[in-house]
Amino acid sequence: MSWLRRLSRVSVCGVGAVGGAFLGYTFSTNGHTRTAYSSWTTGYTPSTKWDWNWDRRDVHSLVKPLKFKEDVNNNIESNEERLDKMRPSASRHLIFIRHGQYNLEGATDADRSLTKLGQEQAALTGERLRELAYPYSRVVYSTMTRATETAKIILGKLENVEVVEHCDLLREGAPIPPEPPIGSWKPEMHKFYADGARIEAAFRKYVHRAPASQEKDSYEVFVCHANVIRYFVCRALQVPPEAWLRLSLHNGSMTHLVVRPDGRVGLWQLGECGYMPPDTLSRT
Amino acid sequence: MSWLRRLSRVSVCGVGAVGGAFLGYTFSTNGHTRTAYSSWTTGYTPSTKWDWNWDRRDVHSLVKPLKFKEDVNNNIESNEERLDKMRPSASRHLIFIRHGQYNLEGATDADRSLTKLGQEQAALTGERLRELAYPYSRVVYSTMTRATETAKIILGKLENVEVVEHCDLLREGAPIPPEPPIGSWKPEMHKFYADGARIEAAFRKYVHRAPASQEKDSYEVFVCHANVIRYFVCRALQVPPEAWLRLSLHNGSMTHLVVRPDGRVGLWQLGECGYMPPDTLSRT
Repeated sequence: MSWLRRLSRVSVCGVGAVGGAFLGYTFSTNGHTRTAYSSWTTGYTPSTKWDWNWDRRDVHSLVKPLKFKEDVNNNIESNEERLDKMRPSASRHLIFIRHGQYNLEGATDADRSLTKLGQEQAALTGERLRELAYPYSRVVYSTMTRATETAKIILGKLENVEVVEHCDLLREGAPIPPEPPIGSWKPEMHKFYADGARIEAAFRKYVHRAPASQEKDSYEVFVCHANVIRYFVCRALQVPPEAWLRLSLHNGSMTHLVVRPDGRVGLWQLGECGYMPPDTLSRT
Repeated sequence: MSWLRRLSRVSVCGVGAVGGAFLGYTFSTNGHTRTAYSSWTTGYTPSTKWDWNWDRRDVHSLVKPLKFKEDVNNNIESNEERLDKMRPSASRHLIFIRHGQYNLEGATDADRSLTKLGQEQAALTGERLRELAYPYSRVVYSTMTRATETAKIILGKLENVEVVEHCDLLREGAPIPPEPPIGSWKPEMHKFYADGARIEAAFRKYVHRAPASQEKDSYEVFVCHANVIRYFVCRALQVPPEAWLRLSLHNGSMTHLVVRPDGRVGLWQLGECGYMPPDTLSRT
């Protein structure tokens, strides 16, 4: 497209020179000035390119190329055949559920158990999951009391879940200082330091494209926490992670991400709780 | 914080020099290298600062400062008083609804009317809005057939909506070339050129903080289209707008944005359709 971009630039300048007026318009991002010819705000070149190998599971990151000699002498499969074998073909549906409402007054995690409303929300979410009737292959829940309780109620509504796991990495925390900052929530710096790496580790563990060995699309449920889920959504969509606090999640709500075999990611729902009667909705 | 950042950098270098190993870690964004000391991925300085005056309705953008002479001679209110008068105090809840399923085979817009399922989805969304019982002050719908039909069905479920409007700016289109691009959807460049500015104009018209004259929080419903809504969400959240196609919306689904009086924006739901029975869900 570079000839076209060049042409566009030339014609804009031409008009400016002849007519004495600047008819095209330019805009500035990160100190660069570009000509906007395909839409109002940017040139054809996006400001942020999608990283197709964000999870380092692009097939070229999985297969070590063979050296030529080895390849020929041992008469084994070609590099292309080896790449094909590792190429994913299935999608992963990742459904993140925020725990139900809990006792905010509790002094310890054990005291911060679900309220009666929180239990009701968990039951409603479990019923919706059952109604959606996806073939859930795995439920993973955070080891914090409110998430564990929520998961147990949900699991009581589902049948044939193959794998049930709990995980400390999914516990609530301070993922990254939010931008814009918020006056009412200012964790100490050591919280971000410890939680940030831990929540990022959770992201890298659970959010990635399917392995080649996965034959069918999978549906996995993660019962965890608002900050963790919001941070995951930003990371998965490749938008600045510090934007996480611009998202808001109701208690018990579902957030549905889809990771395609080529690494493309889609957000299908955020904070879905429409299956809850209005008088059971809560945000804290 | 600069002394701390400096300190952190010094200590990392120190370790590198003494131990012969690089124990801290740095990362690179836009060619700049920064030390990660408060969380795993960024320094304390966010990569993208929130623009508080994104809608140009920060009070300083609304009030022209008086010249000193005028001010004194005419004995009128001070600049501070004039600013206070223009300061918003209410929140705007903007609920964006994607039209129901429609006849994709239609040759003209008029032929692309709602299917029976699409009508059912619109009715379910209208019922959910009624159930949520917000004081809806306005319904605005796109003039395209499928959006108009959806809006009429929804309006049939709501009472006491003060203002009902239709708007050409909200029609479906190609807002901006998506990143990553998608093979199955490649509009001609002139589409982006025309639609991009028009959809941006719709954003600037409808998505902004409340005026000072608005006394109570408002709830406004916009019945329009997937591309328009997805683009609005990216713009409102100040994430790169070319990310819009990473979001996916079910037919009839609700997307709920909240604009606070200080310009802060929150996304409460995206693609909410949990109130629809599973056999009424569709995406195209």
